[in-house]
Amino acid sequence: MSFPFAQRHIGPDETQVATMLDRLGLASLDALMDAAVPKSIRTTDALGLPHPVDEETAAAELRAMAAANEPGESLIGLGYHGTVTPAVVRRNVLEDPSWYTAYTPYQPEISQGRLEALINFQTMVADLTGMALAGSSLLDEGTAAAEALALVHRVNRKAEGPFVIDADALPQTIDVVQTRAAALGLEVAVADLDALPDGPLAGVLIQYPGASGRVRDIAPLIAAAHDRGGLAVVAADLLALTLLESPGTLGADVVVGSTQRFGVPLFYGGPHAGFMSVREGLERQLPGRLVGVSIDAEGRPAYRLALQTREQHIRRDKATSNICTAQVLLAVTASMYAVYHGPAGLTRIAREVHEIAGRAAASLSAAGFEVLTDSFFDTFQVSAPGRAAEVVAAARAEGLHLRLVDADTVGLSFGETAREGTLAAVLGAFGASPAEDVPASLPRELLRTTEFLTHPVFNTHHNETSMLRYLAKLSNRDYALDRGMIPLGSCTMKLNATTEMEPISLPGFAGLHPFVPGDAASGYLQLVNQLEEWLAEVTGYDRVSIQPNAGAQGEFAGMLAIKAFHEANGDVERDVCLIPSSAHGTNPASAVMAGMKIVVVKAADDGTVDLDDLRAKCEQHSDTLAAIMVTYPSTHGVYEETITELCDIVHEHGGQVYIDGANFNALLGYAKPGEFGGDVSHLNLHKTFCIPHGGGGPGVGPVAVRSHLAPYLPSHPLHPEESKREGVGAISAAPYGSAGILPISWAYVRMMGGAGLTRATAVAVLSANYVAARLGEHFPVLYRGESGLVAHECILDLRGITRDTGVSVDDVAKRLIDYGFHAPTMSFPVAGTLMVEPTESEDLAELDRFCDAMIAIKGEIDRVAAGEWAIEESPLRNAPHTGRALVGEWERPYSREVAVYPAGIDPDKYWPPVARIDQAYGDRNLVCACPPADAYAE
Amino acid sequence: MSFPFAQRHIGPDETQVATMLDRLGLASLDALMDAAVPKSIRTTDALGLPHPVDEETAAAELRAMAAANEPGESLIGLGYHGTVTPAVVRRNVLEDPSWYTAYTPYQPEISQGRLEALINFQTMVADLTGMALAGSSLLDEGTAAAEALALVHRVNRKAEGPFVIDADALPQTIDVVQTRAAALGLEVAVADLDALPDGPLAGVLIQYPGASGRVRDIAPLIAAAHDRGGLAVVAADLLALTLLESPGTLGADVVVGSTQRFGVPLFYGGPHAGFMSVREGLERQLPGRLVGVSIDAEGRPAYRLALQTREQHIRRDKATSNICTAQVLLAVTASMYAVYHGPAGLTRIAREVHEIAGRAAASLSAAGFEVLTDSFFDTFQVSAPGRAAEVVAAARAEGLHLRLVDADTVGLSFGETAREGTLAAVLGAFGASPAEDVPASLPRELLRTTEFLTHPVFNTHHNETSMLRYLAKLSNRDYALDRGMIPLGSCTMKLNATTEMEPISLPGFAGLHPFVPGDAASGYLQLVNQLEEWLAEVTGYDRVSIQPNAGAQGEFAGMLAIKAFHEANGDVERDVCLIPSSAHGTNPASAVMAGMKIVVVKAADDGTVDLDDLRAKCEQHSDTLAAIMVTYPSTHGVYEETITELCDIVHEHGGQVYIDGANFNALLGYAKPGEFGGDVSHLNLHKTFCIPHGGGGPGVGPVAVRSHLAPYLPSHPLHPEESKREGVGAISAAPYGSAGILPISWAYVRMMGGAGLTRATAVAVLSANYVAARLGEHFPVLYRGESGLVAHECILDLRGITRDTGVSVDDVAKRLIDYGFHAPTMSFPVAGTLMVEPTESEDLAELDRFCDAMIAIKGEIDRVAAGEWAIEESPLRNAPHTGRALVGEWERPYSREVAVYPAGIDPDKYWPPVARIDQAYGDRNLVCACPPADAYAE
Repeated sequence: MSFPFAQRHIGPDETQVATMLDRLGLASLDALMDAAVPKSIRTTDALGLPHPVDEETAAAELRAMAAANEPGESLIGLGYHGTVTPAVVRRNVLEDPSWYTAYTPYQPEISQGRLEALINFQTMVADLTGMALAGSSLLDEGTAAAEALALVHRVNRKAEGPFVIDADALPQTIDVVQTRAAALGLEVAVADLDALPDGPLAGVLIQYPGASGRVRDIAPLIAAAHDRGGLAVVAADLLALTLLESPGTLGADVVVGSTQRFGVPLFYGGPHAGFMSVREGLERQLPGRLVGVSIDAEGRPAYRLALQTREQHIRRDKATSNICTAQVLLAVTASMYAVYHGPAGLTRIAREVHEIAGRAAASLSAAGFEVLTDSFFDTFQVSAPGRAAEVVAAARAEGLHLRLVDADTVGLSFGETAREGTLAAVLGAFGASPAEDVPASLPRELLRTTEFLTHPVFNTHHNETSMLRYLAKLSNRDYALDRGMIPLGSCTMKLNATTEMEPISLPGFAGLHPFVPGDAASGYLQLVNQLEEWLAEVTGYDRVSIQPNAGAQGEFAGMLAIKAFHEANGDVERDVCLIPSSAHGTNPASAVMAGMKIVVVKAADDGTVDLDDLRAKCEQHSDTLAAIMVTYPSTHGVYEETITELCDIVHEHGGQVYIDGANFNALLGYAKPGEFGGDVSHLNLHKTFCIPHGGGGPGVGPVAVRSHLAPYLPSHPLHPEESKREGVGAISAAPYGSAGILPISWAYVRMMGGAGLTRATAVAVLSANYVAARLGEHFPVLYRGESGLVAHECILDLRGITRDTGVSVDDVAKRLIDYGFHAPTMSFPVAGTLMVEPTESEDLAELDRFCDAMIAIKGEIDRVAAGEWAIEESPLRNAPHTGRALVGEWERPYSREVAVYPAGIDPDKYWPPVARIDQAYGDRNLVCACPPADAYAE
Repeated sequence: MSFPFAQRHIGPDETQVATMLDRLGLASLDALMDAAVPKSIRTTDALGLPHPVDEETAAAELRAMAAANEPGESLIGLGYHGTVTPAVVRRNVLEDPSWYTAYTPYQPEISQGRLEALINFQTMVADLTGMALAGSSLLDEGTAAAEALALVHRVNRKAEGPFVIDADALPQTIDVVQTRAAALGLEVAVADLDALPDGPLAGVLIQYPGASGRVRDIAPLIAAAHDRGGLAVVAADLLALTLLESPGTLGADVVVGSTQRFGVPLFYGGPHAGFMSVREGLERQLPGRLVGVSIDAEGRPAYRLALQTREQHIRRDKATSNICTAQVLLAVTASMYAVYHGPAGLTRIAREVHEIAGRAAASLSAAGFEVLTDSFFDTFQVSAPGRAAEVVAAARAEGLHLRLVDADTVGLSFGETAREGTLAAVLGAFGASPAEDVPASLPRELLRTTEFLTHPVFNTHHNETSMLRYLAKLSNRDYALDRGMIPLGSCTMKLNATTEMEPISLPGFAGLHPFVPGDAASGYLQLVNQLEEWLAEVTGYDRVSIQPNAGAQGEFAGMLAIKAFHEANGDVERDVCLIPSSAHGTNPASAVMAGMKIVVVKAADDGTVDLDDLRAKCEQHSDTLAAIMVTYPSTHGVYEETITELCDIVHEHGGQVYIDGANFNALLGYAKPGEFGGDVSHLNLHKTFCIPHGGGGPGVGPVAVRSHLAPYLPSHPLHPEESKREGVGAISAAPYGSAGILPISWAYVRMMGGAGLTRATAVAVLSANYVAARLGEHFPVLYRGESGLVAHECILDLRGITRDTGVSVDDVAKRLIDYGFHAPTMSFPVAGTLMVEPTESEDLAELDRFCDAMIAIKGEIDRVAAGEWAIEESPLRNAPHTGRALVGEWERPYSREVAVYPAGIDPDKYWPPVARIDQAYGDRNLVCACPPADAYAE
């Protein structure tokens, strides 16, 4: 083991650590952490993790686990289908750091590439579903359906009657929607839609085609829903919609689904990009992120996130959704699949899939089996009385996974990977022979007549050379970790090491269907169990569930566990959740979704939770207190000394303590929330545990609990472990959520070991304090702990500067682009501030480069303050500067060189493709699909 | 099979093909090819290749072949060692199109990234070997030694006596050098250097450490060589040199070797980067490419190829080397390994390797085995009388490959991949136990005391984040196929499809040692045999050898076969090789290396071979005529009608016909050189068969022959097939040359099928004719066939323009950068011209973008001609324009916008990192190692 991986992961080496400690006047990392972390929460024992292994060994272990899975070819269906990821997309998106290390496009000027990919995604979904507008992805089909439930109730506030769910909907969708409805106290009913229950209804969810494969005329169902005062939600298969008329044309209000079969690997259930699209009039009701077109300061079209005011971080306690992320990397993949194939290619794939399914059905029928599904696209059920298990076993011996519907029924679902050999093996398992005569299996009147994907972007890049260049062009527009640091407070943009990333492409991990029998997934089960154990060890909790596929889902799962615990104890009245005013907006949103009422606890002047107010609130709500949600270290980037006291107070009043693990990167190895007072936490594997941000997803948000809450962790109706099939319900569509990316976090822990993880924490805290020390002389650092130290991030207070000079956080953020940086977090948790989190992965040279840039910007601010530059004419307000700006008239009071090379001539300069974007213009003129090509004409 | 791969590979779709045909007034691709290709050579049958499969199927077949190999862990040594490719380098160099699709850096302004990587390589080699200067890589260690032989004779023209080769040199090195020497008629002797033969000598080749592992004091041997009038060449192991004093310090004149164990996969023998470094005074004798530092028009340091005047294309018939490429992609990989580990890391790896070898030897010694090597670094031999085969078999059962030296002797060589488990398995195979006591196994007086890799670049990027950014920074500087077309005549820069590229990373292909037993390489042998058969089928020859690891090596192998054939027939006097004046410079160089005399055949006015002159020359040299080397279609890009007549004439005079396959992309599926008159050809798999250029290598140059030449194909002393161990000799160090990249060409043929390959040819010819039609109105097209059509490329004649306006081909080439293009081939085969080869992979949009740029440039030339701009002040002469230029004073007669956005504002513009580079300055001030960091201070 020549180089311990920790030395590759942690940026500063011994010498640099010494330099940084010296700057802080500290003798050692131990001295730093002793001073920074309150004694009351410090652990003393080393982490109980296996000895670390080197990169090659970890890679070999992961290859062995992947090989222990048996992906074979899956014909199980149920929302997950065989698909072929175009190799050019796999290599140049999924495996390319310029895509996967990017952050959420909150700085749109340096995110135009992935924003274009996302607007392609929105156009693709809107076109195929026939709706006015689609969002830029949701977590999965199940949660998208749950979001549709919430949307229906938002829109249809006076609705009476239940939200009726198609009995032929995907079982996991039904479970996820029921979980969500139960928490919110909404009425749902699962019903055979052929016999829609009488009376008014809030809405109806129609699966199209059905889970059984059935294709029926959904127009009458939509009309019936409307007649009874409800909204019609259709959960649709996008590939089927290339052949079937779109739900929008048929009158649907909302369409949801998954884009998995558009080239996204099965990944044992996720991550995949779910979607939602809506009819005209519902645009502003869409949950999640939406990309729209606006204009930049030079008048050209530019993309950015639209309608951000709808986001949960604004709504807080009025939220009806806690979604605060998307599945960007997967949405990009799916959109590129559509770009590469185009409408004709997609239709051809659909026809081939349909045709092979038709031949299979006809052959089985000819062999005497009753085919139970008359009209189908790619999926049908066959009666094999008493023999279903035998048929499924025979197919498995040939490498095929079929769906065992029940003892008498087999389900077959064909995907893009189906070949002649697949058909032969299927027929072999039934003992049938190919039939000659294949009747039509789709009613002519349901066939699609409307056009889709007519925009040039879907009709241009059909050869690999062109596709490669399109991908390179888009990623060249963006700033990701491969260019420089992304010092985003609260977001922990650390290294995503290649050895962590490579395994997710292994066929054994990438190609597995989530509903194969457990013994076909033994590699995954081993990995999941180890990872859950390791996460329990490092957090001090007793049990972990990795089902939640985003941090907000982890919060929701945790709050559900608390709610279920109180209910099990007969404390049904406990529904008050205390939330400090500094909390991230997802906290109140998640609590509301779990059916709780929010009571806000004040912050003291120093930014800590005001314990007096906490005590008062606890006493005021003592009988109804359910929980407190608190982030530790707080969102102010400080280790609060009072955390244990806070936990005690809440416990004394019968409340549970939810410790948000968003900032766990500052604790790992030094303190365990499960030991210092927490009852439940969630983690963000895409923060502390190296899953890349992917440009705004995927994330993973495991929930960790003490043993008394363990019975209330998420369940799943199709869980490989029978004991986990019933319980509080599913909160993600797949039993293990985004299983496909868990190898990343597994590898990280395996290669770092306890000592490596602990050192990473110390270096992250050191780096934040080093930045605070260097920049504190130029910008006030808003909060510090009692020791005078910050935790793993620090808040630079620009409010005084803004007041005195007019220079806003936006101006500084955009000017940083000219200096070659991504901005820190803006105006969170305190408006008018910048929050910097350097992480342990940035070495001293990069930290200094950033500090130098910030100090140079302070010098520019001083020139504005001195009246040398009017703010409107300053390089700050005009930032970022484009190449285009240089070639036009130049009438600014500073030189072109100051504009684009403020830190000196740099032949490797990153050139932003657009100038500053006008956010308001885009919201006033909402365009959320690909603009016509001539929009870019100069 | 939804999308036939051919539709992905071939750029223009049906509609675009129709548009292009329309422009040419042709009805169909058939009509085009009927008109373009002479009837006399046209094949009529379809190619006899298997039906094509889709990408997923080909990938699955390749995974199965990779799995059929048994790489295990190799301890065979002999120049190939276990190594760990850093994952960040694998993903971001070997698997990254921005590196692997780049061309040779003949346009240095847009190649600064890989030029920096190569100068790092040169610095690394020069430092470790202790020499003044190193080249930017050679093909492998064996050919590097052969190049040293030639160098010695170039320098030491009056040398007497043999070139003495260390008997403890690598067996393949000895064979390659002997093959080369025999062809040139040079005397070599293999000798035990402990008993150096008496008398004068030309030079000596010392292996250090020896093939046996022995480390001896080489200083006295070097001194002895010098004393006897010879030069001392040391073939050294770079990893050992981190511990052992450098050959340069000890007096060596030349050092050669391989950088494979610096992170380059074993690849079953190649491709790897060989190296050569030389002492002061021999700088201008280095064969191959050399990167040097010069300055650009803005006065900053800039890299470019130095001393290009030494290249073979200048020397032609005076050549003593035909090397015209390098192993850039592998050299970059090896250099990045050194950048990532740094001097301390490399030394640590060497110490660990040395230590584990020492423990193994001590343990075996303690167990009673005689260790035959006293002083060693990582390799030693053990006596196991009568039991060697048994020990090797026992080790293989544990997944280890040992070296079976002879029936009584086992060789063991440890590499970076050796772990405790490796040692345990080795000892287990011998039935030995670990020893406690490990004596020193390197003499103290040989240990290294000199520093190495002190430059900052080797002491900065030791964490993965920094390494990733360094790689991204360099690749962002460069223009490769991922940005746009590279219309290089004669170089066929077509698509390198991802599905072709992915398999080379599979451990079963990447991790196999070249000298494992054949039954441990059955996947590779299947692949090689199929590929050789397919290549024979498409060329019309009877047998193919893929051993040559570059096109020039293929030429050399082909000429050796001709020579051996004549000799076998008793025609020892046949040594004249006719070469048309238009031939590529490697042709005469290869013929000279095979011991032939060059006679040049004139070109007629229309650019074709002058048949009258040919007849005259044949008659003149009838008794001594050995061969003609002719490229078809000719380097003029024209199908010459007279090719069959030419072949007949040469055959009538007893000569053999060598048809250079450089332009085979214009023939594949339409004509077979083996059927229309050729006796032998080589192919360039990196041209027609999709192996990427890698920034200037690797290439593969299979040689194809008719049956009468088959006995004279390359042999190899360690060939897995016993029948191929003796023969004309080895021309590459490994039996199958660059086996590791053959999956690329295999996949291409497998996925295209005969019809796909044939269509690719037609579209390549169509595209060239389309470009010729569009551009012919603005620049004269120099040569056309009798039909008025060109073949797959066209020559634009700028000589008139240059004469009239002063605008040179250089000016046009550099101005194309401002338009976002890589230049066509400059001044080959005719000075003052540009040769354009669009290939079949560029679609119509890109072809038109290029034609539009060229036409716009013609408009700029017209303004110069009209006197509007003086040439010196024109955007042509000032091209390429940098960002830096824009921010300085602007006193040019054209606007900044015209400078950098001549085709309109483009937010995706590629910005060249440097301005035009002064070639002469760099040659006058030769600096070929990393410049000091302050050289870049502005």
